[in-house]
Amino acid sequence: MNMLADRRFLLVAVVALLSTNVFAAGSGVVGENLFWLALILISARLFSPLASRFGFPAVLGELLLGVVLGNLNLLGIEYFTKIASDPTVAFIAELGVIVLLLQIGLETRLKDLVSVGGKASLVGSVGIVLPFVLGAFVVGPMVLPGLEQNSYLFLGATLAATSVGITGRVFRDLGKLSMPEAQVVLGAAVIDDVLGLVILAVVSSLVQAGSVSAFEIFRIIAEAVAFLGGSIWLGRLVSPHSSRWLAKLDAGPSMLFAQVLATGLFLAWLAHAIGLAPIIGAFAAGLLFEPIFLQHYETPKVVREVEPLLDGVSKAEKGKIIGVLEKHTHHQHEHMIEPIGYFFVPVFFVLTGMQVDLSSLSDPSTVMVALIISAVAILGKIVAGFAAARGRSAWIIGWGMVPRGEVGLIFAMVGKQLGVMSESMFSVIVIMVILTTLVTPPVLTALLKKAGTETAG
Amino acid sequence: MNMLADRRFLLVAVVALLSTNVFAAGSGVVGENLFWLALILISARLFSPLASRFGFPAVLGELLLGVVLGNLNLLGIEYFTKIASDPTVAFIAELGVIVLLLQIGLETRLKDLVSVGGKASLVGSVGIVLPFVLGAFVVGPMVLPGLEQNSYLFLGATLAATSVGITGRVFRDLGKLSMPEAQVVLGAAVIDDVLGLVILAVVSSLVQAGSVSAFEIFRIIAEAVAFLGGSIWLGRLVSPHSSRWLAKLDAGPSMLFAQVLATGLFLAWLAHAIGLAPIIGAFAAGLLFEPIFLQHYETPKVVREVEPLLDGVSKAEKGKIIGVLEKHTHHQHEHMIEPIGYFFVPVFFVLTGMQVDLSSLSDPSTVMVALIISAVAILGKIVAGFAAARGRSAWIIGWGMVPRGEVGLIFAMVGKQLGVMSESMFSVIVIMVILTTLVTPPVLTALLKKAGTETAG
Repeated sequence: MNMLADRRFLLVAVVALLSTNVFAAGSGVVGENLFWLALILISARLFSPLASRFGFPAVLGELLLGVVLGNLNLLGIEYFTKIASDPTVAFIAELGVIVLLLQIGLETRLKDLVSVGGKASLVGSVGIVLPFVLGAFVVGPMVLPGLEQNSYLFLGATLAATSVGITGRVFRDLGKLSMPEAQVVLGAAVIDDVLGLVILAVVSSLVQAGSVSAFEIFRIIAEAVAFLGGSIWLGRLVSPHSSRWLAKLDAGPSMLFAQVLATGLFLAWLAHAIGLAPIIGAFAAGLLFEPIFLQHYETPKVVREVEPLLDGVSKAEKGKIIGVLEKHTHHQHEHMIEPIGYFFVPVFFVLTGMQVDLSSLSDPSTVMVALIISAVAILGKIVAGFAAARGRSAWIIGWGMVPRGEVGLIFAMVGKQLGVMSESMFSVIVIMVILTTLVTPPVLTALLKKAGTETAG
Repeated sequence: MNMLADRRFLLVAVVALLSTNVFAAGSGVVGENLFWLALILISARLFSPLASRFGFPAVLGELLLGVVLGNLNLLGIEYFTKIASDPTVAFIAELGVIVLLLQIGLETRLKDLVSVGGKASLVGSVGIVLPFVLGAFVVGPMVLPGLEQNSYLFLGATLAATSVGITGRVFRDLGKLSMPEAQVVLGAAVIDDVLGLVILAVVSSLVQAGSVSAFEIFRIIAEAVAFLGGSIWLGRLVSPHSSRWLAKLDAGPSMLFAQVLATGLFLAWLAHAIGLAPIIGAFAAGLLFEPIFLQHYETPKVVREVEPLLDGVSKAEKGKIIGVLEKHTHHQHEHMIEPIGYFFVPVFFVLTGMQVDLSSLSDPSTVMVALIISAVAILGKIVAGFAAARGRSAWIIGWGMVPRGEVGLIFAMVGKQLGVMSESMFSVIVIMVILTTLVTPPVLTALLKKAGTETAG
């Protein structure tokens, strides 16, 4: 009977119903999460046009909403603290950033990415090495004196991290994903994720074993390269055929959608399994699909209904109209993921905002050190931008690499687990992550809008 | 620092990273859930056309997939057992059935539902009272003799339950939601959910206090009626205006989508908060939106691009073409929820299937009793169908009410918590729930297809 009982009552409904009074339910976690998702969904949509009206990117609206909700406990409102620590909400946030990077991958053509490969490698490497060296050997020991060398190594690693979610979102919101600078940033972010993993491995080994195994480093790089190269090579080999097979089984939009999203989730899982960020896998999955691969899927109903009405139209006009409709069909796989994105993506950014603890800003000396470290964090990435480009492009690329987001926090957390991250250094890193994450969207938006005006003029 | 530490590392990424070795991650729960969701997503899409090819409804494919995955542990494969008990997966399943009922609500016109109100009330009441009386006072004591009276009362309550998810899905898959029988079933299911709550309250009070408070019953009914009446009345009063306001702020598809889905989640939460099933709230939310309320949202890009190309077309033809495109626009709110449905709905049905424990079928005498109880469960609902209709309609309505799904399990679980549900009765109920849930889709599909042929001929 036990085995039965184990699996029979899995539905959250049951759990919630029993964890509360049967007739006065409602404080259960299901219920609260539903409310919470509804709130984020609609608030994000309300904030986004408001933010745009003031010239701020939509993502900043979501981040600030998160900052507000996350700090209401300072005013005695504890409701959101509970919800924010819910693992289900956290998983949905993770799904959000996975879907975002899948969308960005779908809107990126692999050949554009390859064509900026050299620049991206340069930006990625300089952007990892320079902040690491500055943090670990120069500025770290200067502004936070008296700590052991390992602590500075971890500070450096944290400064080296890049989180592409914020930047990708800004480029995407402004419709600038196809500009070369965006491609360089995306490519460099992928390279950074691999290099970041290597740095984290090296630093952790130094702390734990006192030495680094060259084999271990080689293994990490080999795995990452094998994953990225292998999945993209194999995926692009397979996906035209799998599209044809799947479309033969069911040519409707649901199959198309399932093929794209399932591939994204699968590669996110695989990336996670070898230690890379899941979003890198999702991005790689997006690169697998070119509109032409998905031609076997059915033309949508609207085309079939409009076509017979076009008898009176000249052949050329008819071709144009069908062309417009088909263009929308060809990009159907991008559009279909969209609603999933509307739902989940804001959850990620609101939750990221909620991690900003305003009370960490209450100690002036910590804030001062944090400002210096943040300046180093920004400087290191901007110099990386100038390693590959000149003028405005360099600024755009450099700022694109600035946000540390959740990756920086993960590095800091590992350091804390290993016992080499002091409390004060931890606070400093948190403020640095906050600043690099919140400052980037408006700066990048301003740079991109200026660039747009100049090109147009 | 503690307060900081509490909220800073919420992202699942962090938890997963730390709960495993940093460099050999992958057994973390995030990763596994991603794999699992990818698997359900693609399997459901592969199974669904296969099931249709054999004449079975798609939902049966998903249920059977769940049965297979859920019972692989009998062959020593424990992987899926772990995933199935994950609360995040369970929450996503719950979201799935909420989205399904929201979709069904969106595709239902309130006036059609009101026009069958009398019939639905009749079906709902008979379908609750008859199985309850049969189970509690006639067949229960006959086939499971020697138990206390309270146990029979709970058996009766379980037989009275209705779970509209399965039936709604079958009607929807076959495009039959608009037929009067479907409207009767939907209306009756809403009434059943309220009455089921009342029965559960009465029975639980009898068990716990030995008596029933008339006030308590009144309170439950009043709350449920106030919720359903109030939310639909207020919602339909507000939604044309809120649509206009929201469309003024942002007339794009994302706002439209957010308005509809957030309303669904919010009312699901509210329903849950007063003790009703969340899906009843989601269904009510769907009833709030009529295509005409959403006219303020922007015509999609495709219409704007096609219109200027139609200069050579006669005015009448042009009107027709724009009409087709606008028809698709007007139903945009239904279509936009669709991808969310593709993603989540199968998770619910696969997880429902996984609750079927085939080892409960290993005791012949239990199976025999369960078959009799199942026959009573089916009979009670079919008689209810005949209370409101004749001939094939009666059979369709009756079978539409048959699946007990998760609602039956919730009732049984409450009985177990109160200590009045014996182990053997529990097994019997589980088998009854399995049978009513698995048998309905093919039977209903056959009835609906026959009805379709006869109308056509």
